[in-house]
Amino acid sequence: MTGEVQTRAAAAVDQARQWDRLMRMAALGAIPGDGVNRACLTELDRESRRLLIGWAQAAGLTVSVDRLANLFLRHEGTEPGLPPVLTGSHMDSQPNGGRFDGIWGVIAGLEAVQALRGAGITTRRPIEVVAWTNEEGGRFAPGCMGSMAYAGFKPADTWDAVADGEGLTFGAELAKQLSLESDIPRRGLGVVDGPAPFAYVEAHIEQGPLLESAGLDIGAVEGIQGSRWFLVEVVGKSDHAGTAPLRLRKDAVQDMLRAIAALNELTHDPDDVLRFTVGRIEVSPNSSNSVAERARFTIDLRHPDKDVLLAKGDAIERTVQAAMTTCAATVTERFHALPSRFDPLVPGLVEQAARGLGLGVRRMASGAFHDAQFLAQVCPSGMIFVPCRGGVSHHPSEYSSPEQLGAGTRVLAAVLAELANR
Amino acid sequence: MTGEVQTRAAAAVDQARQWDRLMRMAALGAIPGDGVNRACLTELDRESRRLLIGWAQAAGLTVSVDRLANLFLRHEGTEPGLPPVLTGSHMDSQPNGGRFDGIWGVIAGLEAVQALRGAGITTRRPIEVVAWTNEEGGRFAPGCMGSMAYAGFKPADTWDAVADGEGLTFGAELAKQLSLESDIPRRGLGVVDGPAPFAYVEAHIEQGPLLESAGLDIGAVEGIQGSRWFLVEVVGKSDHAGTAPLRLRKDAVQDMLRAIAALNELTHDPDDVLRFTVGRIEVSPNSSNSVAERARFTIDLRHPDKDVLLAKGDAIERTVQAAMTTCAATVTERFHALPSRFDPLVPGLVEQAARGLGLGVRRMASGAFHDAQFLAQVCPSGMIFVPCRGGVSHHPSEYSSPEQLGAGTRVLAAVLAELANR
Repeated sequence: MTGEVQTRAAAAVDQARQWDRLMRMAALGAIPGDGVNRACLTELDRESRRLLIGWAQAAGLTVSVDRLANLFLRHEGTEPGLPPVLTGSHMDSQPNGGRFDGIWGVIAGLEAVQALRGAGITTRRPIEVVAWTNEEGGRFAPGCMGSMAYAGFKPADTWDAVADGEGLTFGAELAKQLSLESDIPRRGLGVVDGPAPFAYVEAHIEQGPLLESAGLDIGAVEGIQGSRWFLVEVVGKSDHAGTAPLRLRKDAVQDMLRAIAALNELTHDPDDVLRFTVGRIEVSPNSSNSVAERARFTIDLRHPDKDVLLAKGDAIERTVQAAMTTCAATVTERFHALPSRFDPLVPGLVEQAARGLGLGVRRMASGAFHDAQFLAQVCPSGMIFVPCRGGVSHHPSEYSSPEQLGAGTRVLAAVLAELANR
Repeated sequence: MTGEVQTRAAAAVDQARQWDRLMRMAALGAIPGDGVNRACLTELDRESRRLLIGWAQAAGLTVSVDRLANLFLRHEGTEPGLPPVLTGSHMDSQPNGGRFDGIWGVIAGLEAVQALRGAGITTRRPIEVVAWTNEEGGRFAPGCMGSMAYAGFKPADTWDAVADGEGLTFGAELAKQLSLESDIPRRGLGVVDGPAPFAYVEAHIEQGPLLESAGLDIGAVEGIQGSRWFLVEVVGKSDHAGTAPLRLRKDAVQDMLRAIAALNELTHDPDDVLRFTVGRIEVSPNSSNSVAERARFTIDLRHPDKDVLLAKGDAIERTVQAAMTTCAATVTERFHALPSRFDPLVPGLVEQAARGLGLGVRRMASGAFHDAQFLAQVCPSGMIFVPCRGGVSHHPSEYSSPEQLGAGTRVLAAVLAELANR
């Protein structure tokens, strides 16, 4: 049941203005095929932030930045001392990325707040639109640095020494960015320096095919599935492809194939919920007439259920070892994130708002990581998904229509109107 | 049955001098782990040629070069007008190569000729020691350019436009080499400009494990097995590893694995004569959290029997296609060399000389390519193999002992003494 205020907020969303802003952002770092390459803490990143700041100031919002360069656009509440409602996402892109991943969540936040203001809706609580620093992790790994530091998950200086492909460090590039943005008022760092926000809502394209294939408009995201990442290295012996009899070989490619086939068996899921991916393979010497000495491959394993994720992940090493015939394998776990489940507050409001606006909605888990994963540790959080064409993201062809994005922002405006008056 | 002249020629081989020369050559382009990186038509190549020329001239041989920069060291016969006996190999190495592949055949030729001369053995026919240009193909592809042009297999200017990794062309680098060696008398180009040699004998390390594992000293090479090289490209669709359900994926890595498994079945040979190798794999975008859009792999297929090579090779495309579940595959044949069988003259003399010298010998096929493959088209040809440790070549750890190499050169000296007096 959507109230009158929520309906008015949603109705004030300007779908065309939002689309226009997205396309202007997409011009910053545009690459062939409608793509975007806009890494964090670069000149392009700063240009996009200046563009956003200009729009925010024109809309009457106040701008501030914290020491991780997370950028905040604040709509004041009638009770400014109350913890704010936070919404937003990130502005950096994958190296070969698209026009919507991340940036839409920021533009949608601005659009929703502008809609509230345009409709003359006041809120008790402030609403802050945030652009988190380095969500993608494409230039500096890992991603989600800004939100992790904000949520107190890691100290602010954790990644200072992380270097990009050219040897520039995150610490130095962050200092440069802050210096170039020294005209913007500085604020404290999230829960490290102040109270937690009242709630966090992040709008994002789904990055998967479920909404599109079900013909739905909105995903009310209840949580983010857990992930475990592994690196497997298979070491054999290089030989001349023309001379070494197969019985005398230690062919790393062949034992890698056996390992992956065994892992396919291990991770087979008739319900198709488990995600098992071998996305990266490197062979050495990688010469067509040499038997491979080494083969390395990655495993990306995800599941919303902690017990399944633990059981399957823990079985990977022995499965790989059992598959070796002549080579030796080492299995290294590189990342482990348990499934996170959002507080029911925000997902409930998202579902309710979507239904109230006559939109098709389902509850779902997010397959990808998001900044919301860390915000969920400090305040009730949730996400609003909209369909994207073919489920494609992290690619120039990533696409959601003006109408699909408009629907998502209407839901966001309605949810913010509700949360900020609680 | 080895004659007295052959026995004397063999006995005059100086194993220590040969080893010393190999080690001095190995210093030119030395890389860590006892390896060598000496690409053709480089300054290092020219240095090694000058070193060789100095030794040859000191031994009384005359030096000449043809327009492919193939280098000849001539021992004059008592009947200089007769077609010469040719022996030799190449001086260029793989980028991460060893100290014996190729260069030993050249040094062995010089040592054998010096042994004959030292023992006061005259020959009716001239003997020419040759160093072929660009056998490896590591800098300019394909390999065996010098011998192909010599044998009239391809016109001399065929590869002028072939560029190396830095954009330098074979034609320009060849012209530079010839200009820097303009003090060396120029000769015509092989059978293009003159008569065929009487015979060709090439000494080479085995590059495989058969002699070592059988405890034998000498391989009398009867021919070179045939090869077919294929490139397979599997095209699917990139997806987010966390979001795309497996049933909706077109995972190029997974269909590649199915294809290789099916090819393993196709090429399974209980006699272990067929050589099937997948040595090179490239995945795109090759990101640990992206389903692979493309996977490319190479196939190197070899067999000494033409019928087997044709049947198995021709079945590759349909085997790959039948293995595809969701992706599309293209199979391209990039190279096809039928098995070549040497005239029985040289292999017979090699076997006879080895037995006469009390060495363990077997007849065998070469698994690798060699310049002898092209010489075999124009004159009776053959090769002398010696064992190499672990069958390893194209690697810094490539090794044959002074004794193993000495035995090979004694056989070569005996064979040359016989052939050059026919």
